[in-house]
Parts: sequence; C-alpha cells; structure tokens
Amino acid sequence: MQAAQYIGGKSFNVVQGSSVAPGPGEVRLAVGYVGICGTDMHIYHGVMDARVAPPQIIGHEMSGTIVEIGAGVEGFAVGENVVVRPLDYCGECPACEAGHSHICHKLKFMGIDSPGAFQNSWTVKARTLHKLPANVSLKQGALIEPLAVAVHDVSRARLKKGERALVIGGGPIGQLVALAARAEGAEVMISEVNDARRAFAETNGIKTVNPLASDIEAVIKDWTQGKGADVVFEVSGVKAAIETMTKVASVRGRICMVAIHSQQPQIDLFQFFWKELELLGARVYEHEDFERAIALVASGDIDVNKFISSVNSLNDIGTAFAGMDGNPTGMKALVQCNSAA
Amino acid sequence: MQAAQYIGGKSFNVVQGSSVAPGPGEVRLAVGYVGICGTDMHIYHGVMDARVAPPQIIGHEMSGTIVEIGAGVEGFAVGENVVVRPLDYCGECPACEAGHSHICHKLKFMGIDSPGAFQNSWTVKARTLHKLPANVSLKQGALIEPLAVAVHDVSRARLKKGERALVIGGGPIGQLVALAARAEGAEVMISEVNDARRAFAETNGIKTVNPLASDIEAVIKDWTQGKGADVVFEVSGVKAAIETMTKVASVRGRICMVAIHSQQPQIDLFQFFWKELELLGARVYEHEDFERAIALVASGDIDVNKFISSVNSLNDIGTAFAGMDGNPTGMKALVQCNSAA
Repeated sequence: MQAAQYIGGKSFNVVQGSSVAPGPGEVRLAVGYVGICGTDMHIYHGVMDARVAPPQIIGHEMSGTIVEIGAGVEGFAVGENVVVRPLDYCGECPACEAGHSHICHKLKFMGIDSPGAFQNSWTVKARTLHKLPANVSLKQGALIEPLAVAVHDVSRARLKKGERALVIGGGPIGQLVALAARAEGAEVMISEVNDARRAFAETNGIKTVNPLASDIEAVIKDWTQGKGADVVFEVSGVKAAIETMTKVASVRGRICMVAIHSQQPQIDLFQFFWKELELLGARVYEHEDFERAIALVASGDIDVNKFISSVNSLNDIGTAFAGMDGNPTGMKALVQCNSAA
Repeated sequence: MQAAQYIGGKSFNVVQGSSVAPGPGEVRLAVGYVGICGTDMHIYHGVMDARVAPPQIIGHEMSGTIVEIGAGVEGFAVGENVVVRPLDYCGECPACEAGHSHICHKLKFMGIDSPGAFQNSWTVKARTLHKLPANVSLKQGALIEPLAVAVHDVSRARLKKGERALVIGGGPIGQLVALAARAEGAEVMISEVNDARRAFAETNGIKTVNPLASDIEAVIKDWTQGKGADVVFEVSGVKAAIETMTKVASVRGRICMVAIHSQQPQIDLFQFFWKELELLGARVYEHEDFERAIALVASGDIDVNKFISSVNSLNDIGTAFAGMDGNPTGMKALVQCNSAA
C-alpha cells in the first residue's frame, strides 16, 4: 500500500508500506477520495507539529470502500461504500457518559492524533462508519465530513424554518453552513469580503453582503425589518466579526461560534445582557449529523460537487496542498487515493 | 403624598406632592416597602445621571396595596396587596411581537426611565401587577422583584434537577440565584471572597468556596467528580470570574451571564469550542418569573426575611442608602413608604 506522510515544513513523503489487517471490531477500507480541510492546511503550515508529531499520515475528510472485515463486525459487507466519522472516544468519561462522546475528555481525532486517510488502505473501527447510498459517489462522499460540521452547527444553533441567519465568512465551511441552514428552511445571507467567494455563494442562490463595501448593521436591519438576525454563524475567525455578531443579532438571537479563535477576543457582553443573546460553541459532529449530511446529498438538496476545485492523485498530494495555500477561491481540493475510485 | 427625589450627588429630597389619580387601565398603590437595588446604588453614585435625569423618583423593588382603581381595570380590588413588575413595553416592536416584551426595543424601566416607587403613592398600569397571597407580607413582597431576577436567571440557564451549579458572586442576587437554583433541585456552591457573604450563604445551607484561598478549578473538579459544573452563574462582574467561568464549566456547560459587564472582557472562546459551552445573556424577568418567585416565598421554599438588613422610613431614605454604600455585609435595605404597611 501507499501512504502520504506529512513530514513537516509543508512537505509530504509518499511511502510504500503494508496494509494493516483489521482487528476485532475493525474494517479495512480502500480509500477513495480525501478532501483537504482547513485544519490540514494548519498542519501543513507547521503550527500543529507538537500535536501531530510528524511523520504522520493526516487527512480525515474521506470516502472509501470496505475491502476487509474484522472479527465481530456486523452490519457491513465488503464492497460497500462508506465514510468515516473520524472521532475516537473513550466511552467512559463524564462527557461520554452524558451522551456527548464527540467531546470526549480524551477524544482522539483520527488524522491528527492518530494516522489518517491520505493512504490507499486505512484500517478503522467499524463504529466510525456511515454507509453511502448508491446515488452518492465517492467524490461526493469526501464532502460529507465538512457538510456534517455544517449540519452540526445548524443543529447547535437550533435554527428553525423561516428564521433569518447571517453566516460571517464564505470559505468552504461557511458556504456549507449557509446551504445546510437553507435546507432547514431558513433565509440565509453570507458576509464575505472576497469577490470570488461571494460569487460562489450567489451561484448557489445565497444572498451576500460585502462588509467592507456596505454598512452590515444597516443591511441586516433592512433585511430583517428591524428585528436583527435570528442566528449568526461566526465562521471567519476575524476580530471584526466578533464585533459584528453581537450588533446584528436580534433580541434572543443565537450566535453559533464555528470559527476557532485561539486568541481571547474582547466580547461585547453588554449586548448579551441587553438582548439576551446566546453564544453556542460547536465542535465537530455527532452520529446524526453524518446521517443528515448524507441524506442532504442523496436527496439532491445540497450539491456538493460544486465545491470540488481540484482532484490530484496521492502521488501529487504536494500539488494539491500547494494549490490551496493562500487561495481563497479554491473551495475543496480532493486527493484520489485509489485509481479505481 | 410624600416622595423621595434623587437629586444627584448621593442626595435625596423628600418632597410633598399630590397623588396621581389612576387613568384608564391604571391603579394607584399605597406603597409598602421598597428595597434598594444595586442599580439604585449606581444611580446614587451618579453614574446613571444621563439616563435617570434627576430630580427623579427612583426605586423598583416594591410591594404595596391597591387604594384606587382606574376605568377598565378588571381582576383587582381595593385593599389587595400586590407587587409591580416594573417594565413598560411598547407591545409593537419585533421583540414584543416575538413574545419577549421584557426586552422590548423601547423598554422603559420604571424607577429609572420613569418615576419609581420611593413615594407613598404610586400610580401604575394594572398590567404590571402581581397579587401577593395572604401569607406573604409586604416586607417579603419587596424581595419578590430581586427573587424574580434570580428565577429568570435559573430559567435562562435551563437548570435541571440534580445538576451542579456554581454561582460566582455572593451579593444579594447571587445568594437569591443560589436559593432559586436549589429550589429547582440543583446542588449549588457559591464562590465569594467576602467572609460575611460566605457565612450568610452557609446559614442558608449553601456550600461556599473562597477563590482567593482555594484553587477553584480543583474544588469544582473534586465536587463534580471530574465533570465540571453543569451551570455557572456569573454574578460578580469581576474579570477573574470571566476566566473562571469557562474553566470550571463541564462539557456542554451553560454559563448564565447575570452581571452587567460594561467593559468588553476577553473571553476564552477556545473553551467554548472545546467543550461546546453556551453563554446565556439574562435581563430582568418575565411574567412567569414573578409568579414563580411569589410561589417560592409563599410555600416557604425560600426565606427572604433573612435578606432584610435594615428598614428605614421614607424620610430616612438617605440613611438607608448610606448604610448600603460600600457595605458588603448588608443584603437588602428596605424603605418603608407608608407607616401603616
């Protein structure tokens, strides 16, 4: 088998190795396609080397086909197409016991804390699998993980039909959040400074606003007849968004924090008091978010094919990463890990 | 009639005037007792002069007896004891239309934005009234408004039976939040630096921790068997609490922001991501919070008599305010506005 090891310094080594036979409760997958996530780009830039411990096989937005099944695994068959929910939880901590295993106190994220999907053979626990229906391709399957992030965000925000949601930030996750929000019956607007990203949103029928060219408070006030946005998704990670989110939210508005702010920004708590705002942290996804994401793609409600900017072979993984580096117009670069996929 | 006007500079003038006859939909009350709120102390210190516009009759934590009823008022009778929910809302804005009239876009807070209760005759809209049952005294009635604040906070936090709640700050509202939380079946601890306030909490059977003497993270971890607090009420308004609240909250923990932070503090958003925390803004109260507060006092579940530190006559209102100024051991000073009360 073949695997791409991240070795630090924006570099990968594609190495030959042996497939790992599935142990009890495990399956071995022929990996189809793997998308490059924002987190993968952070790893590529070296900022997560302490956690990733290169050389490491990264990658977690994947699709694949079952090729081998370990002892005790039921409900799966060789030849089935699946995606992996890349969370390895302990099952015993207070968070797991409370039903929140996706935020397990000892959570290992597969592809960051353990070997990931940028290889043509990946052996994983069967409990991580979700089946792809026949009308969802392996290429589409590689978009299920980021769509599950978006579905989880929409769920955390308790978005209801007919509500108005502002998405701050029009990168891949922001665009998927907008589509997932619309699929729940919300009216959606994306705030984004980049022309190409706004144009992409418009081709999906999503309203946009450029916060550098317009007074976003006035735009939202006008759009909502003075009420303010019922829900704000902060997906940009920039300081200006932190200021905007509390200003544009309605009374009892919910702000879903999708971006990871590793600095501690100043937040207008007075607005939280004045309008009884809610701030909702969101992290990865739960089982039902993957199922909902697959259903949204299978039904045609969300066309994820539009997000695929490029497809490179595993041997060309360096080209795939370089193509996404500092490229705001690229939505999702896929790496094809088996030529048969 | 007699009224105490706040005239700026920590001073009041007690003046004689004429009672205001109740118009349609209004009632006139003989005011019984009025408590001094933290907001009244802010006004006393002059920091809200621009909003209050002295000379102004302030005061909003009150009880009274109906003495006159205007046209069209139904369901009330002369002689009934009542409390006023001091919110004057428009009924037409998006917040009112959404059922959140307590956060009306044009909300006037009676006793701040319009004349208040430090007078022996107060004429108010009948829609602001809640009846006191026979076994709740007028003195106890003056504590209903702050208890309704606490009940609202507990409601906003969606506190459930058996959960563990940390209350940061043991002033009057923090103590009432702790009692309201316990009344819902939660286990409660108060974090408070002041010895007398901790002692007051202990006399009510509430656990306490001194965050200057103990490692509060370790204390909460131990108390919750490693889980963290299900709910944190931030009632202190100090910077250290902003740091503590995200550290001690459990996975999916809810942080209810009771204190008014007029500065914009730095908040550890990474913890919101990592643990999927929620921050819930809370402002005043709703109709049902007043009803619940009255029921908690009537049933004996919460003994508000213990909170009464002093009772002064309306003529001695200056003494009442001076006694609370910079006095962390005083819980609630009452001003008696009618000698018959």
